[in-house]
Amino acid sequence: MAKDFPTRAENYAQWYQDLVIKADLAENSAVRGCMVIKPYGYAIWEKMQAVLDRKFKETGHSNAYFPLFIPKSFFSKEASHVEGFAKECAIVTHYRLKNAEDGNGVVVDPEAKLEEELIIRPTSETIIWNTYRGWIQSYRDLPILVNQWANVVRWEMRTRLFLRTAEFLWQEGHTAHATKEEAIEETKRMLDVYADFVENTMAVPVYKGVKTANERFAGALDTYCIEAMMQDGKALQAGTSHFLGQNFAKAFDVKFTGKDGKQDFVWATSWGVSTRLMGALVMAHSDDDGLVLPPKLAPIQVVIVPIHKNDEQLAAITVVANKIVDELKKLGISVKYDDRDTHKPGWKFSEYEFKGVPVRVAIGPRDLENGTVEVARRDTKEKSVMQLTDLTLKISHLLDHIQDNLYKKALTFREENTHHADSYDEFKKKIEQGGFVMAHWDGTTETELKIKEETKATIRCIPLNAKKEKGKCIFSGNDSEQRVIFAQAY
Amino acid sequence: MAKDFPTRAENYAQWYQDLVIKADLAENSAVRGCMVIKPYGYAIWEKMQAVLDRKFKETGHSNAYFPLFIPKSFFSKEASHVEGFAKECAIVTHYRLKNAEDGNGVVVDPEAKLEEELIIRPTSETIIWNTYRGWIQSYRDLPILVNQWANVVRWEMRTRLFLRTAEFLWQEGHTAHATKEEAIEETKRMLDVYADFVENTMAVPVYKGVKTANERFAGALDTYCIEAMMQDGKALQAGTSHFLGQNFAKAFDVKFTGKDGKQDFVWATSWGVSTRLMGALVMAHSDDDGLVLPPKLAPIQVVIVPIHKNDEQLAAITVVANKIVDELKKLGISVKYDDRDTHKPGWKFSEYEFKGVPVRVAIGPRDLENGTVEVARRDTKEKSVMQLTDLTLKISHLLDHIQDNLYKKALTFREENTHHADSYDEFKKKIEQGGFVMAHWDGTTETELKIKEETKATIRCIPLNAKKEKGKCIFSGNDSEQRVIFAQAY
Repeated sequence: MAKDFPTRAENYAQWYQDLVIKADLAENSAVRGCMVIKPYGYAIWEKMQAVLDRKFKETGHSNAYFPLFIPKSFFSKEASHVEGFAKECAIVTHYRLKNAEDGNGVVVDPEAKLEEELIIRPTSETIIWNTYRGWIQSYRDLPILVNQWANVVRWEMRTRLFLRTAEFLWQEGHTAHATKEEAIEETKRMLDVYADFVENTMAVPVYKGVKTANERFAGALDTYCIEAMMQDGKALQAGTSHFLGQNFAKAFDVKFTGKDGKQDFVWATSWGVSTRLMGALVMAHSDDDGLVLPPKLAPIQVVIVPIHKNDEQLAAITVVANKIVDELKKLGISVKYDDRDTHKPGWKFSEYEFKGVPVRVAIGPRDLENGTVEVARRDTKEKSVMQLTDLTLKISHLLDHIQDNLYKKALTFREENTHHADSYDEFKKKIEQGGFVMAHWDGTTETELKIKEETKATIRCIPLNAKKEKGKCIFSGNDSEQRVIFAQAY
Repeated sequence: MAKDFPTRAENYAQWYQDLVIKADLAENSAVRGCMVIKPYGYAIWEKMQAVLDRKFKETGHSNAYFPLFIPKSFFSKEASHVEGFAKECAIVTHYRLKNAEDGNGVVVDPEAKLEEELIIRPTSETIIWNTYRGWIQSYRDLPILVNQWANVVRWEMRTRLFLRTAEFLWQEGHTAHATKEEAIEETKRMLDVYADFVENTMAVPVYKGVKTANERFAGALDTYCIEAMMQDGKALQAGTSHFLGQNFAKAFDVKFTGKDGKQDFVWATSWGVSTRLMGALVMAHSDDDGLVLPPKLAPIQVVIVPIHKNDEQLAAITVVANKIVDELKKLGISVKYDDRDTHKPGWKFSEYEFKGVPVRVAIGPRDLENGTVEVARRDTKEKSVMQLTDLTLKISHLLDHIQDNLYKKALTFREENTHHADSYDEFKKKIEQGGFVMAHWDGTTETELKIKEETKATIRCIPLNAKKEKGKCIFSGNDSEQRVIFAQAY
């Protein structure tokens, strides 16, 4: 694998794109803005899905599936939702093609025009709440705790693999509750599930917080989010959980009869993470030599490469390697023994380094004599010679250690790039330098938008569990109760 | 659960639809022809996916994801493919809505018209082979063994839940090979995977066969299929595996350099099963009292219902029940203890019977005294009193036994409803009666279409591994080498 792509310092954006493509995670397709997720990238996404899906089920949720299409009129039913969403989208207007009269290919049959256009879902609140109306009569039908794994489409003009694509894959949870308190509790529970996943599985530290009114999801009363820092100091919103109040229940007339016999509108939440997390994963850990994957998400956790001069040596190495493979598999560790004779060991070393395989084991003739192997870790590039005794246990511990180390490294980076600013001049200087800036803000959308206009920084969130600290807004000088997190963002 | 729906004998079609809806498997959505798959139905589909996905990976395949949209021009590239597919489909023509000038809702922005229309994939051969062109240069890049789990859309005019819907979920495998032999081998391997799944997991016997030219997939050289018999005697195509030859490689210019340095077009297969299998599952096993699910696909395999007159009894029963729950879970059996006080035992019995839970365990005060439980099986409705000793092992065996029994029952039904016919009169009479008719056919599309026109019966397949038997075509009297399977079909 030739490293014919820029370093992060040279060109971070290009480094990211080249890495995603050359490491076989994804590529641009023939359809503008839509990506192909390649097998290696999809294997990582599947691992993410498996962990998240288990967490959703452990917290009482079931999966279901709702239509890809949403009737256009549905979007108009929730006033703020249509403003925020329905504009840039893929619109189905016809349902039949016919042979072109000139004999060249096919054309849209003008007679097969839909009475009402269908929108490819950009998110499914409307079609789902329209469905819930039929599912909910009384408090006994609540809560409904449903999640959907699906593709969605938002017609983005400027797209980047994983981070912003017209079509992307995601999960969207949509829950219905009898009380406001229960819905808020659910919103926060799922935020915690996301934070736990991103920190402990992806090894990326996050701030949990609430969005400002301006950054809120279209139709939500409150949007909770987790925000992560990428290696260029920019913020990436890694997941959101929305408290929707009774907005969608009112828009779609979803009422229930309570224990007291009184009717009320149902309370709602929705929450989602997407293939965008793949972008966050790459940007948070990878380096100038290629991908760095946390062991919990690596499709191949350990690769074993034989180093030999002849078939006899290979045969002897293979006996040892197969034993290690069997033992690692018993521990649930995914391992590949690459004994291909089409490539030299050096080529393989580069390849697996580039693909981010956390641990590489090399076995040569001298190792056989000494009962040892050479173990290299991807994150620090350290190599060590290990005795075969208890090797698989040692590798298992090493994987845990790599997982921890990646998290700590990312956390240290974030701490080093998080600053306080107490004046607007200081703020502008620090935003320019990159990273997160904790600053006081007067709580108005006006101030928020002016700061954004002048510095490109947005309020990523009002952090939860942050210490209350009275201060003055850096922009207006008005009173503020706590610092909020500003950053330029993906 | 009131059994307010017809029996199979009264109205099979209505029985099916009512059962699917009332058992919470799926329902029609607000979008014509599109269904909502409800949590209980989706849980069965997830079990199907898990088994199939494991089988795909065991046979060397990886998952990937390709765009939902296909540029219109792609369909015209493979001549027979466009004839078979591109006509009834969802067509995206615009990418933006705007506020209506009269202030009422939103309208399509005429300025946001796509230069080339996009088709929602009805199947992905075209976009995938257009992508493979970039992935394949030499024989070293082959084979490519990729599968995709996705939604697809075919604009069906008459739809039925699961069996025929505009949008449905499926998997589509798309493989690329260096030789014809290898591609044919793959086509047959995946047919075997499907047959194994449908027979051993779904407990539905199938005939493996080849489609006639007339019933072939648009663009295939050969379509292999598995055909199952439903309880009304009709056939249901449960899966197909296509040998595509070099058709798509030629259409999308996908060549590779062989070991000999010569260039050749790549050989292709594709294969798929869909949520249609959910329909087959219901139609093959269920009865007039509701769903009957094979244990391997039942979301709840065992339900335990307490029968008590007071809280003290319930508490004592719960101790025993929890122990059974723990032990069953250790065996990997999914079990639910339904101690809700909102419903009476009789209601619960009906409910779980209706939902097809394979085994029901009831525990009453007398059972506590005797150290017994009452075990009822859904398939035969037999009840027996069992000692607590080794109960979980006995339940585990019972689940295996139910799985076997469902298969055998379906097989017996199929055998009883499969007939030979040696004259056209006999054929017509037997087709009228329902079931499969094995008859000689002269191999021409002309005969096939005339028989279809007159009897609504189609050739489901030319069975594989059937005995060669010379005979005369029932319609034309011309020579025939083996019998083929005729039936009316879903």
